[in-house]
Amino acid sequence: MDLLLLLLDLGGTFVFAISGAIAAVKHRLDIFGVLVLSFAAGNVGGITRDLLIGAVPPAAIAHWPYLGVSVLAGSITYVWYRIVDRFSYPVMWFDAAGLAFFAVSGAEKALVYGLNPLMAALLGMLTGVGGGMLRDLLTIQIPNVLRADIYALAGLAGAAVVVIGHVLGIPALITTIVGGLLCFALRVMAFRYGWHLPTARPPDT
Amino acid sequence: MDLLLLLLDLGGTFVFAISGAIAAVKHRLDIFGVLVLSFAAGNVGGITRDLLIGAVPPAAIAHWPYLGVSVLAGSITYVWYRIVDRFSYPVMWFDAAGLAFFAVSGAEKALVYGLNPLMAALLGMLTGVGGGMLRDLLTIQIPNVLRADIYALAGLAGAAVVVIGHVLGIPALITTIVGGLLCFALRVMAFRYGWHLPTARPPDT
Amino acid sequence: MDLLLLLLDLGGTFVFAISGAIAAVKHRLDIFGVLVLSFAAGNVGGITRDLLIGAVPPAAIAHWPYLGVSVLAGSITYVWYRIVDRFSYPVMWFDAAGLAFFAVSGAEKALVYGLNPLMAALLGMLTGVGGGMLRDLLTIQIPNVLRADIYALAGLAGAAVVVIGHVLGIPALITTIVGGLLCFALRVMAFRYGWHLPTARPPDT
Repeated sequence: MDLLLLLLDLGGTFVFAISGAIAAVKHRLDIFGVLVLSFAAGNVGGITRDLLIGAVPPAAIAHWPYLGVSVLAGSITYVWYRIVDRFSYPVMWFDAAGLAFFAVSGAEKALVYGLNPLMAALLGMLTGVGGGMLRDLLTIQIPNVLRADIYALAGLAGAAVVVIGHVLGIPALITTIVGGLLCFALRVMAFRYGWHLPTARPPDT
Repeated sequence: MDLLLLLLDLGGTFVFAISGAIAAVKHRLDIFGVLVLSFAAGNVGGITRDLLIGAVPPAAIAHWPYLGVSVLAGSITYVWYRIVDRFSYPVMWFDAAGLAFFAVSGAEKALVYGLNPLMAALLGMLTGVGGGMLRDLLTIQIPNVLRADIYALAGLAGAAVVVIGHVLGIPALITTIVGGLLCFALRVMAFRYGWHLPTARPPDT
Repeated sequence: MDLLLLLLDLGGTFVFAISGAIAAVKHRLDIFGVLVLSFAAGNVGGITRDLLIGAVPPAAIAHWPYLGVSVLAGSITYVWYRIVDRFSYPVMWFDAAGLAFFAVSGAEKALVYGLNPLMAALLGMLTGVGGGMLRDLLTIQIPNVLRADIYALAGLAGAAVVVIGHVLGIPALITTIVGGLLCFALRVMAFRYGWHLPTARPPDT
């Protein structure tokens, strides 16, 4: 379980760090600014989760692999930016993967720390949206999570699979894979096909 | 005391969640984005307070009514937006009420956790301004608390009543009501009559 | 050691509070808004550090001198704004000093709380950039730390001196002074002479 959590966390850190680095390069930050934004985007979701459940010091601060993975992701993006940028909408892809990793890892870890199932699912969602939210705020944009089609909802769906599986006694490895894939697929397809939820129409403004 | 704290917290969560939902509708977010911003605006003040005083996991994460109240407030606002919007300056009204609820609940809870009176009053103020601050940041605006006439000061006044009452041994129920009303009245009247504190004049810019 | 930490922390709080107050005056906030931004800029770096290492309640909340120093710095800036503003780029000067104070205090305190050397250096850097980051976000600007020439890197250098000195058994007072001066000098000279690190060039945008 500990190993699974570590791998999920590091996976989420890696892809969110890439999304942070891409945003940093687009804003023409220098190499160190790229690394700072990589670390922030890649670890703030998990750090927030750890603070909220009382896992102090947070894993990303206590253990060096989180820093290593962030620096690696930031450096790769910086050096091979042209290749990474060939993906269409590269931030979106890495962001969706980070959302999936952290939504399931957040839910798992919250269950380990004894939170009730409803809150564990919610905390999974929060973990998943935290890193991208800070990345967007730091570059002064309304966070994607509030704007994008089926974003936080995809995170909640992934986290819910993990939590429901836990209640039903299904092995964590299975629910993690299913939940993660569901979250990733939902988010990517919503983006691709423009799926969206209804929007309130303010009378004027 | 626990019941009083819970009611104050939930009251603050409800009205701040409405203010978050209104801001979300104005920015044309979808229904889930509305709920996310409702939860964020309604709970971040209390969550910050709990992290700072070491009450982990924070009440808003550990107990489901906070989530329930946030979702309820967000849904009501989404569905009956036209009615809510008939108030003039609806964000301001709900924001002022949220400030009042959280200023007194923040001060109460800080006293329960053994902080000294001065810091308990300050923490009440911080609790009161946290949710609105995040709501404004997430929609990329300079937080109201920094701009508005007698905002944080109203929160501090409300919290100070609770703390001074505590030192003098007056029952918490009374000081809570007086402090909350004072805070709400100060903020609303400052808004209505344009009361404001002096502003420094930068020589140029 | 405790006294050294307290002095470093209060020094950092004082100069960051001034930088926050200057930013607040430039945005024409009222006197209370100036004090709020002073407190936020002056204490959020240290509060974040304390939350991350599990020192709860954070020093800035538990002890009144932090509040006192912030209010003093904000009041001085408000009253004598014209004098403070005679410095060229006054925010930059106070910001660089705050970075230096908090980079070394953050590293010291992380070592006291048993973090490993690498993470202690990183945490020093994070402590140093936190207050300025929030100040910039609250006034809706891309944080200086991401934009500025050799900013976070200067913080890391200062923190690294403290950590390496600790590993080698050199007295904390010496490494603190050397680390703080190195950080301050690096940042100021980078600003003066336009030293900068390489920037990635996005193909288009």
